[in-house]
Amino acid sequence: MGASVTIDLVSPHPAQGPAAQGPDHAEDVLTSLTRLLNADIESCNRTIVDRMDSPVALIPQLAAHIVAAGGKRLRPLLTLACARLCGYRGDRHIKLAACVEFIHTATLLHDDVVDESQLRRGLASANAVFGNKASVLVGDFLFARSFQLMVEDGSLKVLEILSRAAATIAEGEVLQLVTQNDLTTDEARYLDVIKGKTAALFEAGCQVGAVVADRPEVESALAAYGMSLGIAFQLVDDALDYAADQATLGKTVGDDFREGKITLPVLIALAAANEEERAFWTRTVEQLEQTESDLDHAVMLMGRCNAIELTLDRARSFARQAKDALAVFPPSELRDCLCGIADYTVARAR
Amino acid sequence: MGASVTIDLVSPHPAQGPAAQGPDHAEDVLTSLTRLLNADIESCNRTIVDRMDSPVALIPQLAAHIVAAGGKRLRPLLTLACARLCGYRGDRHIKLAACVEFIHTATLLHDDVVDESQLRRGLASANAVFGNKASVLVGDFLFARSFQLMVEDGSLKVLEILSRAAATIAEGEVLQLVTQNDLTTDEARYLDVIKGKTAALFEAGCQVGAVVADRPEVESALAAYGMSLGIAFQLVDDALDYAADQATLGKTVGDDFREGKITLPVLIALAAANEEERAFWTRTVEQLEQTESDLDHAVMLMGRCNAIELTLDRARSFARQAKDALAVFPPSELRDCLCGIADYTVARAR
Repeated sequence: MGASVTIDLVSPHPAQGPAAQGPDHAEDVLTSLTRLLNADIESCNRTIVDRMDSPVALIPQLAAHIVAAGGKRLRPLLTLACARLCGYRGDRHIKLAACVEFIHTATLLHDDVVDESQLRRGLASANAVFGNKASVLVGDFLFARSFQLMVEDGSLKVLEILSRAAATIAEGEVLQLVTQNDLTTDEARYLDVIKGKTAALFEAGCQVGAVVADRPEVESALAAYGMSLGIAFQLVDDALDYAADQATLGKTVGDDFREGKITLPVLIALAAANEEERAFWTRTVEQLEQTESDLDHAVMLMGRCNAIELTLDRARSFARQAKDALAVFPPSELRDCLCGIADYTVARAR
Repeated sequence: MGASVTIDLVSPHPAQGPAAQGPDHAEDVLTSLTRLLNADIESCNRTIVDRMDSPVALIPQLAAHIVAAGGKRLRPLLTLACARLCGYRGDRHIKLAACVEFIHTATLLHDDVVDESQLRRGLASANAVFGNKASVLVGDFLFARSFQLMVEDGSLKVLEILSRAAATIAEGEVLQLVTQNDLTTDEARYLDVIKGKTAALFEAGCQVGAVVADRPEVESALAAYGMSLGIAFQLVDDALDYAADQATLGKTVGDDFREGKITLPVLIALAAANEEERAFWTRTVEQLEQTESDLDHAVMLMGRCNAIELTLDRARSFARQAKDALAVFPPSELRDCLCGIADYTVARAR
């Protein structure tokens, strides 16, 4: 038995739509993937640490703060896994996975400044420790450094995919800013926001795996997997912002509410709102006039119309689409793991 | 006679070190260069406007605010001029000049957030009008878009030069943040700051001109021209922050003092300071405890030790080095103009 048992438990036919697994099992999928890609992950981590260095000491200090806080490094893991799923045997995917993580880290740093967040991954956010100025500038450095790494790799195709993703992320973030506090935002616009700010990098990171493996025929499948997975991931995040306890979430619960972000749980509650409830949402989310009990009241209203569960249903549907996209690949332990990641993404909410 | 007269007045032997020209003449050099490169400049301006577009309306709105504020577009002008000086006859330099301007604009947007500036080029800064959040995110967009343009151009060499410059700019900005309010900063460290935050992009933008023209033998000359010019430019900026009147400067006079930035005028005054004066600089620049009359007192102390004029002497010396670097090119109207730009940079301070 031993370590491989975990893998055997994952459905061998994920493309035919295995049921989502429970949370304990989902955690095991990350463990399995980490075991399968152990050497790649270690190389990638070394590359991240090596290449965030700079003679300006504050840069590695601040970068280490956010990188050390850890997180799951889900995005680079996906790039590594997708390259290997395509049968890639070289090591270009290591550096490119580090690029993806640098772009992600840069956007996190800027996000936390924009959102004035105090917590990130359960620790004080970089802006809270080092100040907004340093966070903005080190974000810029990591972004530039990610392009330097891509240039070293030398593929214009990869550069095209990731530079487009970077522009799309910024567009998604600006759109989020514009729709904030705006109750006329509809679901289509909300989807545009999360596709841009979150799913675009999942999409690009997965597609890059096919590119390094020189497998153009599966690029669109991996891109579709990443896009659906990214949407599912953000939907769950948006549900957790109203449903999780702070320790689980690793960031401040209710942040979205306090900032007046228009997420799917809010849109669902709003669609079901009577006149009095609509006045509540207008006051709290649009005008940002909030009292201490308002978050609890918001959660209660969401409970009444099942907004969290409906949001998670949507996430499950996108997770299913993600798994379906992998049907073009023959069954393998790695494919099972990537399907398991989709389940894991949704299982976080349990 | 006519328009070409202006050009004839510029020394035909700039590499042998023509004397700096007066301010009226210096302005004429910009006019001449604009006339010589008129078609290129118009194409570049069109590219800038076309490519800062996005379906997210706030992006072109905010970008237009800073781009419309104008400025001299000195950096793209240099890329255009350097390419033509190398005998380049194509149009790749247009898009790459736009890249350089996008990188510059992105750093301006982030700078103004970091410095909490209220004025930029004589108008309200983007962060003052649209808020810090939008400025950070639109800066990110323009930065990503500049890489998309480079990828379209398709030269890995250009991508390498400009991605390195982008990382160096961020390093210079972080170093500036670290040295701020730190009176132990020495001149070498100050030079590192301005080489990074300002001169690196001048250097890269000029070098790119040689790359598109496929003239590797003059790359280092143009890079050296850009580096020296950029240093001269920033030295003058740092002098003007204490010496200009607000209308001329187009930004708030005394900003550097109020933020406690350690620039060369401060370093010179500090080196000449007696105990009482050192206490003044410690209180105002290091501890940022300033009263209304302190800026005037700082300017008086600088006047006593000739700090502004000594700073401008340094700028003139770098401007001379910039011109000397162009000696590898045969005499031409365009070479004269590029020498004139070096004079213009210094003449701004008159």
